[in-house]
Amino acid sequence: MSEEKDLNEDYARGGFGGALESGKNPALILVDVVMAYLTPDCPLYSPRFEDAADSCRRLVAAAREAGVPVIFTNVVYRAGGLDGGLFYRKVPALQSFLEGSELGAFPPDLDPRADEVVVTKQYASSFFGTSLAATLTAMGIDSLFITGFSTSGCVRATALDAMQNGFVPLVVADACGDRDARPHESNLFDLSQKYAEVLSEAEAVALMQR
Amino acid sequence: MSEEKDLNEDYARGGFGGALESGKNPALILVDVVMAYLTPDCPLYSPRFEDAADSCRRLVAAAREAGVPVIFTNVVYRAGGLDGGLFYRKVPALQSFLEGSELGAFPPDLDPRADEVVVTKQYASSFFGTSLAATLTAMGIDSLFITGFSTSGCVRATALDAMQNGFVPLVVADACGDRDARPHESNLFDLSQKYAEVLSEAEAVALMQR
Amino acid sequence: MSEEKDLNEDYARGGFGGALESGKNPALILVDVVMAYLTPDCPLYSPRFEDAADSCRRLVAAAREAGVPVIFTNVVYRAGGLDGGLFYRKVPALQSFLEGSELGAFPPDLDPRADEVVVTKQYASSFFGTSLAATLTAMGIDSLFITGFSTSGCVRATALDAMQNGFVPLVVADACGDRDARPHESNLFDLSQKYAEVLSEAEAVALMQR
Amino acid sequence: MSEEKDLNEDYARGGFGGALESGKNPALILVDVVMAYLTPDCPLYSPRFEDAADSCRRLVAAAREAGVPVIFTNVVYRAGGLDGGLFYRKVPALQSFLEGSELGAFPPDLDPRADEVVVTKQYASSFFGTSLAATLTAMGIDSLFITGFSTSGCVRATALDAMQNGFVPLVVADACGDRDARPHESNLFDLSQKYAEVLSEAEAVALMQR
Repeated sequence: MSEEKDLNEDYARGGFGGALESGKNPALILVDVVMAYLTPDCPLYSPRFEDAADSCRRLVAAAREAGVPVIFTNVVYRAGGLDGGLFYRKVPALQSFLEGSELGAFPPDLDPRADEVVVTKQYASSFFGTSLAATLTAMGIDSLFITGFSTSGCVRATALDAMQNGFVPLVVADACGDRDARPHESNLFDLSQKYAEVLSEAEAVALMQR
Repeated sequence: MSEEKDLNEDYARGGFGGALESGKNPALILVDVVMAYLTPDCPLYSPRFEDAADSCRRLVAAAREAGVPVIFTNVVYRAGGLDGGLFYRKVPALQSFLEGSELGAFPPDLDPRADEVVVTKQYASSFFGTSLAATLTAMGIDSLFITGFSTSGCVRATALDAMQNGFVPLVVADACGDRDARPHESNLFDLSQKYAEVLSEAEAVALMQR
Repeated sequence: MSEEKDLNEDYARGGFGGALESGKNPALILVDVVMAYLTPDCPLYSPRFEDAADSCRRLVAAAREAGVPVIFTNVVYRAGGLDGGLFYRKVPALQSFLEGSELGAFPPDLDPRADEVVVTKQYASSFFGTSLAATLTAMGIDSLFITGFSTSGCVRATALDAMQNGFVPLVVADACGDRDARPHESNLFDLSQKYAEVLSEAEAVALMQR
Repeated sequence: MSEEKDLNEDYARGGFGGALESGKNPALILVDVVMAYLTPDCPLYSPRFEDAADSCRRLVAAAREAGVPVIFTNVVYRAGGLDGGLFYRKVPALQSFLEGSELGAFPPDLDPRADEVVVTKQYASSFFGTSLAATLTAMGIDSLFITGFSTSGCVRATALDAMQNGFVPLVVADACGDRDARPHESNLFDLSQKYAEVLSEAEAVALMQR
C-alpha cells in the first residue's frame, strides 16, 4: 500500500498522471466480451470475467437509455489463422476464435442490437486493423468508455490506441476483467499515469447521464 | 495518342515513372470481385467487369499452380451502414453490400478456398481499416499482383496503399475493370507514373512462374 | 464535353456522386506547397502551380481571419532516402526533398506561423505515416479544405484518406495544381464521384465565413 | 517469487506464452534514448535509464558490426503541442520534447549515423503516426530488437505494434529502462506472455552474430 503510494508520488514528480477532460459525445465499447471468457471449461475462463460482465450489462443498459452509442468487438480468424499473423502464433488460446467457434459468440444477454456497430478484429487493439477510428470520427464521437476483457491485453491496447487516435479513453475499472488481480491492477496503474482516465462504474454512469 | 505520348515525356522530364523491382515473394489479390459488378441488373454492372473477371480466373489458377498465395477482398456493412462512415454516405451504390446481400458474394467459380485469406473491408483501399498489411508482413510477402474492381476506385486505392506500406504493387491491367474506359486509362497512367508497375496478364503469369 | 456529360450521367446511374455535408469545424490543409514546385529550373515546376499557390495565399488569409486552423505539409527524407521506402525508389523527383534541400522549404509568403501544425510526411497521403488524423481528432476537426500539389498525386491521396478516416474532404479545385490539365481534371472527376466534395475558391471562402 | 511462478503457470494453463521464431532479417531500434531520461535534473531522469543506455551502446556496436540496421526514435512537438494531441495533455513531462529542446537530443555517444533511419514520433508507439512499418517492410526487415525508454511506456507500445504489424518483437530486457522496477517487471511479464520474446543482451548479441 505505502509502496504503491510511493509509486504514485514518484510518477507525479516525473510529470505523469495529468487529467483528460471527458468529452461531450462519448460512445461505450465492449472489448471481446464473448463466451470464451465466460465458459468455465474454456482455458480463457476466470470468474473474474463474470463480475466484469455484470458491470458491462449495467453499463450497456445505461448507455442505451442515455443515447450513448454502444460498440461491440469480437475476434474471428479464418481457418489456419493466417489472418491472425504473429498474434495467433504467440497466443495458442486464440484458436478459440476460429470462424464458427461458439466461444467467439456474444453472450445472449449482452449482444449487439441490429443497429449497433460490431468491430471484428484479429489483434489486441480494437483500433488495429479495423475501421473503428473512422467509424468514431464519422459519428462525431470524441471519447470512449472502455470495458471488457482483458485489462492487461485488449483493454489496455484499445485504451492506448484510443488516446493515440485522439479519443479520450475512459476505462471503467469495474467493467474490465483479467484472469489475475495483479496484471489487472498494474495495467490500470500504467493506464491512469500515461494514457487514460480510470473510473468506476458509478462515475461512468453519472457521466453518461449528464 | 500523340497527346498521351507528350504526357509520358513530360512526366519523364519531371522525374516520375521510375521502375520498382518485382519482389521474390508475391501474393495475388482480387479486390472486390463480387457479384454486384457481374450481375446485369445491378447498377454497378458493366460488361467490362466480366472481361476482367475472366482474366482474374486465369490468374488465380496460375497463382495456385505456382504456390503464390491468393487473397480475396469483399465489402460488408452492418445495418444502417454506420460502419461505412463517409464512404457509405458518398456512394449510394454501396448499399449493395449490406450484410447478407447476395450482391456482395463471391462468384461461384472465383471464390476463396478455406485456407485462403479473405479481407473484409468498408473502404476503398484494401489496406484501410483491415489487417491486410499485417497479414502480408507476417507471411513474408514483399509484392502484390493487384486485380479487380474498379480501376479508378478500390484498385487504385489498394495499389497506392500497397506502395505506401512497402509492398511492390504489380497492377495487372487486363484483370482490372472499370465501368468506362476513360477512368480506367487515366488511373493506370497515374499509377504507372507514381506508385506502381502496370503489367499485362501474360507478364504477371510469367513472373509467377519464375 | 458531351462525352464528359455522358460520364457524369453514367456514374449517376451507377449510384455514385452523393453529397457529403460540409461539417462544422473545418481545418485548411496545404499539401506540399513548397519551393520545388514553384522554382522554374526544378524538374517539378509548372506555371500551373503558381496559379494554385495564389489561390492558397487567399485561402490561408481567409482561414486565419475566420479562425479556421491551417495545417501545412512538407516532405523530408534522410540521407539515402531509406525512410522513403518504395515511393522514393519509384519517383526520382523526390530527391528534391532530401533533408536540408531548399526545394523542400515553404515559400516565404506562404509559411506556417509558430502555432500552426506542420506535418512532415514521406508518402503521397498526408495521413500516411503521420499523426495528422490524431491531431485532427484531438482538435475536434470534422472536415478539411484540401489544397496544394499535385491534384493527381498527394492531393488525391490526402482527400481519399480524409474520407476514409472520417473527415469530410472539401477539395478546392482552384487551389490544387498539377503539371498538366488532363490528370488534374480526371482526378477531380474521380474525387467528386467517389470520395470528396470539389468546390471553387469562392465557395470555400464562403463556407469558412459561415 | 512463488507468486510469480503461479502467475506463469496460470498463464500457461490459459494458453498464453507461445514462442515466436526470431526472424532472418532483424533491425535494432532504440526507442527514445534521449537526454531527458539521462539528465539528472530533468524530472524524467532515473539512474535506471543510464544502465539501460550502457546496454544500448553495446547493442548498437554489435548491430553495426553485424550489419544489422539501427533505427533511432525521438519525440518532437511543435510550439503549443497541438501535434501531440491527447498524449501531450495527459503527460506534462512531454513538454521536455518541444521543438528545439536539448532534452530531446540524442546522447553524443549514442546517436544516429547519417545513413541510419531516425523516426520522429509524437505518441507512445514508434509505429503510431510514423512511417516506421513502411520503412521496415521496404527494407525487408522481419523482426526487431527493441530497446530504450521506458519499458512500461514507449517500449511496450512499440513491441505491441511490432507484433500487430507482423514484425517479431525481440525485447532486450537489459537495454530497456523504467523509472521503477515494478512497472518494468510487470510489463516485461505481459509482453512475454502475449506479444513478444523477451531476451537478455547476451542472447540478443548472439542472435545478431548468427
